[in-house]
Amino acid sequence: MTFFIDFEPNGRRVPGKDGDTILEAAQQAGIMLNVTCGGEGICGHCVVRVMAGAVSAPNVNEETELGAEQTREDWRLACQTHILGDVRVHIPPESLATAQRTQTEGREIPVDLHPAVRSVEVRLPEPTIKDQRSDATRLGETLGIPDLHIPLSVLRTLSNDLREHTFHACAFVRDSTLVGIRPPGTPALGFAVDLGTTKLAGYLVDLASGQTLASAGAMNPQIAYGEDVMARISHTMSKPEGGEQLRSTVVAALNSMAGELCVQVKRSMRDIADAVVVGNTAMHHLFLGLPVRQLGLAPYLPAESAALDLPADQIGLALAPAANVHLLPNIAGFVGADHVAMLLGSGMLEHGGIVLGMDIGTNTEISLIAHGKHYACSTASGPAFEGAHIRHGMRAAPGAIEKVVIHDGQVLLQTIDNQPAVGLCGSGILDVVAQLHRAGWLNERGGLDLSRGGGRIRQGERGAEFVVASAQENGGREITFSRSDVNEIQLAKGAMRTGANILLQKAGVSEQEIDAIFIAGAFGTYLDVQSGIDIGMFPCLPKERFQQVGNAAGSGARMALLSTEKRREVVAIARRVQYVELTTEKSFPSLFAKALMLE
Amino acid sequence: MTFFIDFEPNGRRVPGKDGDTILEAAQQAGIMLNVTCGGEGICGHCVVRVMAGAVSAPNVNEETELGAEQTREDWRLACQTHILGDVRVHIPPESLATAQRTQTEGREIPVDLHPAVRSVEVRLPEPTIKDQRSDATRLGETLGIPDLHIPLSVLRTLSNDLREHTFHACAFVRDSTLVGIRPPGTPALGFAVDLGTTKLAGYLVDLASGQTLASAGAMNPQIAYGEDVMARISHTMSKPEGGEQLRSTVVAALNSMAGELCVQVKRSMRDIADAVVVGNTAMHHLFLGLPVRQLGLAPYLPAESAALDLPADQIGLALAPAANVHLLPNIAGFVGADHVAMLLGSGMLEHGGIVLGMDIGTNTEISLIAHGKHYACSTASGPAFEGAHIRHGMRAAPGAIEKVVIHDGQVLLQTIDNQPAVGLCGSGILDVVAQLHRAGWLNERGGLDLSRGGGRIRQGERGAEFVVASAQENGGREITFSRSDVNEIQLAKGAMRTGANILLQKAGVSEQEIDAIFIAGAFGTYLDVQSGIDIGMFPCLPKERFQQVGNAAGSGARMALLSTEKRREVVAIARRVQYVELTTEKSFPSLFAKALMLE
Repeated sequence: MTFFIDFEPNGRRVPGKDGDTILEAAQQAGIMLNVTCGGEGICGHCVVRVMAGAVSAPNVNEETELGAEQTREDWRLACQTHILGDVRVHIPPESLATAQRTQTEGREIPVDLHPAVRSVEVRLPEPTIKDQRSDATRLGETLGIPDLHIPLSVLRTLSNDLREHTFHACAFVRDSTLVGIRPPGTPALGFAVDLGTTKLAGYLVDLASGQTLASAGAMNPQIAYGEDVMARISHTMSKPEGGEQLRSTVVAALNSMAGELCVQVKRSMRDIADAVVVGNTAMHHLFLGLPVRQLGLAPYLPAESAALDLPADQIGLALAPAANVHLLPNIAGFVGADHVAMLLGSGMLEHGGIVLGMDIGTNTEISLIAHGKHYACSTASGPAFEGAHIRHGMRAAPGAIEKVVIHDGQVLLQTIDNQPAVGLCGSGILDVVAQLHRAGWLNERGGLDLSRGGGRIRQGERGAEFVVASAQENGGREITFSRSDVNEIQLAKGAMRTGANILLQKAGVSEQEIDAIFIAGAFGTYLDVQSGIDIGMFPCLPKERFQQVGNAAGSGARMALLSTEKRREVVAIARRVQYVELTTEKSFPSLFAKALMLE
Repeated sequence: MTFFIDFEPNGRRVPGKDGDTILEAAQQAGIMLNVTCGGEGICGHCVVRVMAGAVSAPNVNEETELGAEQTREDWRLACQTHILGDVRVHIPPESLATAQRTQTEGREIPVDLHPAVRSVEVRLPEPTIKDQRSDATRLGETLGIPDLHIPLSVLRTLSNDLREHTFHACAFVRDSTLVGIRPPGTPALGFAVDLGTTKLAGYLVDLASGQTLASAGAMNPQIAYGEDVMARISHTMSKPEGGEQLRSTVVAALNSMAGELCVQVKRSMRDIADAVVVGNTAMHHLFLGLPVRQLGLAPYLPAESAALDLPADQIGLALAPAANVHLLPNIAGFVGADHVAMLLGSGMLEHGGIVLGMDIGTNTEISLIAHGKHYACSTASGPAFEGAHIRHGMRAAPGAIEKVVIHDGQVLLQTIDNQPAVGLCGSGILDVVAQLHRAGWLNERGGLDLSRGGGRIRQGERGAEFVVASAQENGGREITFSRSDVNEIQLAKGAMRTGANILLQKAGVSEQEIDAIFIAGAFGTYLDVQSGIDIGMFPCLPKERFQQVGNAAGSGARMALLSTEKRREVVAIARRVQYVELTTEKSFPSLFAKALMLE
């Protein structure tokens, strides 16, 4: 039996079968709900309200996540609710995975242009009965590359392509390889991608001028199969088709992103003659369809760590027929090519002195360069700063509280796009903790003081909690921050700080000797450095030593796209890095315990 | 409605739908009928007899091909006859495309072994938390190839493969590329293929020892889409999917051939680490899925003429994951890589002096080496010596007359496998013409003398004809050879001889100066050289100057498989060859007219 499902507020309508979940119908409608648990009914993020129509009764997962009262008001988990008739469903903004701030901005460090592919305009002599040289031979000779290598994918259309343009065309050439034939006057484009666990950032670049023509951000749709790296690795281990699902999902997302960028600048995806993709080791492996089982189990081995140039068509990207995708080298199982790109794109390699770099995300990779040595580690900082595992946490979407100031006992909030507050994103969460601590309402062990806060700190169901916005202040929606939310932040910042401290210990350098700290990543762009210092996430150093470099991995990917010399440089850098496995460090437990404290 | 179709004499039964042709049912049953016109009802080769059951009425094609009387006796064209109920069908041997002599034998010229791929047994150090180098890195270092290149297809299973064999395995290595991981003790195999217009010959070779482990011949199944090169080219032009049909058909045939050869020697196709495929330029292009339109129209341009190394998986051959297929260079549109292989495999390059080489087939390619120069041409000799266009012609299958002697007015016949005669194959056809001419029953212009032959030469429906075997002598089946059959042979041998003569003219060499003539190809193996001299197909030279070298293209393919040096050598040879386009030669018409004469 087929029913219709209407979604509010966007007004989309899709047909659905008896028993489909609302989540499935929403996916059909192109609405991306936040399902960080992969639709298992345990993350509680895909909350929707059934406005009319017949659906299955609330199950135990929904009762647990939403409570009896909410389910009575027809608030439901989209992944647990089955359609039994025509249904009208309201989706609140915080349940949407899309429309959030996906950050593509990073530094634009100038590079000498040495792109891998150039576009060469050619006019071939027309064939005659006296000149029966093959199409490949006459093209090679016209290009001055007698040993021109033409991959099968290009060869299959070469003769027709040349005739279509009456032997006057643009040849995309990489070294002595023909990448594609395009109409005369076509510049070669490049596609740089930062493939994050949570977000994708893509850039369309003119390879000849180095100019970024367009950029876009999107969610990594793999999130439907697991929120973090480990959840995705276990997804591949739990289902035989799991790895292929993850691979094809992200490849499809990159194809649509490239397609949209091309539409923006009125170009064809066939004009994309080269690509660089950076991601952490697990994202790198999942994107390529490499096995990750051995990456998820000790001793955490990558299948491949070298820089790779792979045919885009083998990967599934629909670029120029013989375009390559270049992947920067991975350093270790948990310090991947995105960190290598961040080293390049942050500018920290050129800074000199003692330099610390942190790329903050679900995993935070940290590099320390000191006295000619380079150490790196990865810390499982977790997704708390992405808003996950925080009761009212959310991603950086409209309505997210992104700044919090407690001033004279007053709580001042700033939300993204000045929308009514629906939750707290990373920078807001950091501010809450820092401001509570500075106001003396929160002690260094993470305890909220019930006697402070002018009535904003109260005993909640699961311990003390701070009312960030009361229902009264915020149009009926209450936003709180609990003791257990504070603990999540302690764990996250403690992990980062411990990683940095162990690297400093290895290098025999004190915190005060650090000349510069580079903070990269989406959250890293928006966070308040002083708040980070206040809670002990960062060492207490003058603020001018900090540089917030935005999506440095994306910048690094663009640099590698524009310069094969930079690609070579980072291979040497990746080889020089000494990877530090934190879990085997003797000092880890004591340093971690200390770093949990709010300073 | 589903019916059953029973085939005699092999007893196979298949289900068929209302309206299916008998040809389709036979294909279902794995019975390969001779359909040189591609099932258009015009070649008249797929003759079958409907013994029982309801079928469609004979159509105009059948009346034309078979005559009213035959159709009255239920002789039908399988491609034109539609099934209307359960049917029993008899297939006479001459209608079968299979079971014929497909020749794989050729010279085995010893070569220094320099295979492209070697099998290296490795034991990797087991990973530990202190040694987190990637699987690729540890394999590269164990092999002593730090920059080991691992194609994506191999990388995708590398980690699992290594663990399956507990880090002890055979690595197939080509230069610094990993071709595959196999169990310890696995030698690397190679697959050499002569991809003929009519026949396929395949060889499974041990790359380390150079030994041919098994060989097989099969029909080229593309024959269902057209008998000769031009018919197949026009097939690709008449249907959008035509090229892909031809490509996938022959790729599937090579996959089954490789599979069968591997079964014979109890090995896996994954053990095949390298392949060499040779064919004429059109077969080469169709096999790779390259466009052939420009090859079929003047000025007959190949898309590609260079030697190629292409990934087997891109081509569709299921060998070791990163096995390559090597294709020898093409010389021109109608002198392809198979001729290059023949030059190599015949031994004519090493002979010295003035050497003529002819690879006789539907197209006959001819090379002349004289005074340090090398000329080559191609002649459209046609399929007459394959038995096509000859009234009682057939391929070299059991029951084919392969030798004919006229002695004292007596006609003596020898058939393949001593079966009752069903028709004449190439060597028999050549003998008939030569023996008739020598007996004085046939004049030099191709006229049969009705006054001679002791009653065996008579006036037939379409002119004079010679009774090769009377119904009385041959169990009721009469086999004749007509004036128009003689003309086909005159055209075929005239084309070959003209090609040779023009090359001699170019080189300024007389026939008598030729030191050696190499005759290659299946028909070339079995023909009687004296008969060839008698009808003027070959120059009149002492018989010891002739060498019948069998499937020299197949031998050459094996040599190229075993030696990358030979591959390099033939690239230089192919470059040096001066291709002679016969159609633009002024002397062509007069030389051709002269060469039509039976000498």
